[in-house]
Amino acid sequence: MALRGGIDLGGTKIQSAIVAEDGSVLASDRRETPTVGGPADVTAALAASLRAAAEAARVDPRELAGVGVGSPGEVDETRGTVTSARNLPDWEGEFPVGDVLSQDLGVPVRLGNDVQMATEAEFHLGGARDEDSLLGVFWGTGVGGGLILDGKPWLGRGAAGEIGHVVVKKGGARCPCGRRGCMEAYAGRGAMEARARKRQASGESTQLFKIMQDRGRTRLTSGVWARALRRSDPLALDLIDDAIEALGAGIASAVNLLDVPTVIIGGGLGLRLGEPYVDRIRTAMLPHLFVDWSPPRVLVATLGDLGGAQGAALQIDAG
Amino acid sequence: MALRGGIDLGGTKIQSAIVAEDGSVLASDRRETPTVGGPADVTAALAASLRAAAEAARVDPRELAGVGVGSPGEVDETRGTVTSARNLPDWEGEFPVGDVLSQDLGVPVRLGNDVQMATEAEFHLGGARDEDSLLGVFWGTGVGGGLILDGKPWLGRGAAGEIGHVVVKKGGARCPCGRRGCMEAYAGRGAMEARARKRQASGESTQLFKIMQDRGRTRLTSGVWARALRRSDPLALDLIDDAIEALGAGIASAVNLLDVPTVIIGGGLGLRLGEPYVDRIRTAMLPHLFVDWSPPRVLVATLGDLGGAQGAALQIDAG
Repeated sequence: MALRGGIDLGGTKIQSAIVAEDGSVLASDRRETPTVGGPADVTAALAASLRAAAEAARVDPRELAGVGVGSPGEVDETRGTVTSARNLPDWEGEFPVGDVLSQDLGVPVRLGNDVQMATEAEFHLGGARDEDSLLGVFWGTGVGGGLILDGKPWLGRGAAGEIGHVVVKKGGARCPCGRRGCMEAYAGRGAMEARARKRQASGESTQLFKIMQDRGRTRLTSGVWARALRRSDPLALDLIDDAIEALGAGIASAVNLLDVPTVIIGGGLGLRLGEPYVDRIRTAMLPHLFVDWSPPRVLVATLGDLGGAQGAALQIDAG
Repeated sequence: MALRGGIDLGGTKIQSAIVAEDGSVLASDRRETPTVGGPADVTAALAASLRAAAEAARVDPRELAGVGVGSPGEVDETRGTVTSARNLPDWEGEFPVGDVLSQDLGVPVRLGNDVQMATEAEFHLGGARDEDSLLGVFWGTGVGGGLILDGKPWLGRGAAGEIGHVVVKKGGARCPCGRRGCMEAYAGRGAMEARARKRQASGESTQLFKIMQDRGRTRLTSGVWARALRRSDPLALDLIDDAIEALGAGIASAVNLLDVPTVIIGGGLGLRLGEPYVDRIRTAMLPHLFVDWSPPRVLVATLGDLGGAQGAALQIDAG
């Protein structure tokens, strides 16, 4: 029985999993993404993480059928390269992650888009495994999207799924991508943090940055947001209201266009805030849904944090 | 060689075509949609129109391989029924268009969604015939959309393609559908007319309604809008600016999600205003396109007004 390896490369953490034939996780590793160095250092950290997971599963990496990697940035699946992964250190140009990792680990390596990997994991192993079609929405620092239509990943010309940059308010707020009125301009954790800093600077009181410091963070992580919301911090509540309203409008727009039966909400904020907030997204979608008598199912990603690594492993043919 | 018939049932007009094996139109008929009566009267008008087209092509309708119909409202393709076609007279309930028409004409009849038929015509016979995927945008009284993905119509659970109800401004203008901020609330000819009436009533000067009366119309048709724009009517210019901005944001959102290579702009306003305005839509999309270095082709529907009838005929298997 062939085991497969999967690695999810994120802006803040690397997660690896050794996956059995049925898709279940035998062992995993989680570590921080290097913040200094460059693509070679990040790729070395990918290898180290996969080795640690393999060791925990008591398997030699060379015995794996292969290792799949889900990566941000521009992924060239055929050539095994990643270009301009902006959240990773000094990663502007192209780097041959596939070749370097394959030589290091002694197994075949396949690359894919991180969000698409997580979507495929939910489709094959998670909450949408009985469905034909799926929209995955990954609500974290940015808002990523993945599509499965009629059982197959829909990539368009290679860049499909950018639901974070669906316009929800023309002439609206500036998005980290530079455009105006994108869903991510209201719902992305990065944009929310920038707005929180600005509003605090102009005199609004909030516990967000105090909680951040108390927890030894330098960013408003999903955990910081969750704690501030539990304490009913007015600024946190207000910014989350805006985020939910934007997610409701943007996801409903996608459903009006594609009429998919299921939407999965994952990502750092989606997973941390969970069902009560996914229920609010459901409610925020309703006024915008054209077929409002038959809304899609909207579910929290069931595989949680390891979904990306599991999905990456699914890229490897274990037959 | 088997000929096929196609009928496009619209809110204002019925168009029929007799279509050769290569998809070309041998003869056609165009008449007004009955404004009184009910579904049976409209269906009788469909039969009369198809008969007139057949006569012009010197063919007995019974010799056709079949007749396809593109209809608004809720179309049940399997049962051949149309329900709640709101722009048609007294058409709330379900009516068996397929059976009635088939008995009347003595040929098999197949029903489909009007916008999807027009999209398929452009895909198979028109401007997108060399493409795998296509978004059709039909800019008329409302704004309809049709999708072809990887060579096949994408219908979702049956209601996909509602690009007119993609949200472009949350909390924005009221749409004829009752929701807020839909693209159609700014770009649909129905919504634009309502806004023009309101702004004229509150004192803005415009020639729109004068042109309408001079041309013997009771509605602001696409021709009325075109003439007012040629005369640089300020209110018409302003409302068209809003429409183009909304179309730019909404179509760009769809492209960010689906990354299709081609967008076709048809519909009454799209065809009447043509390339200069489609070029403005292209420009309005750019600031919202995530992959702005590789925008899709955006083309005026090449089949013009008869595309819907041609697409409807394609539903019939002529083999």
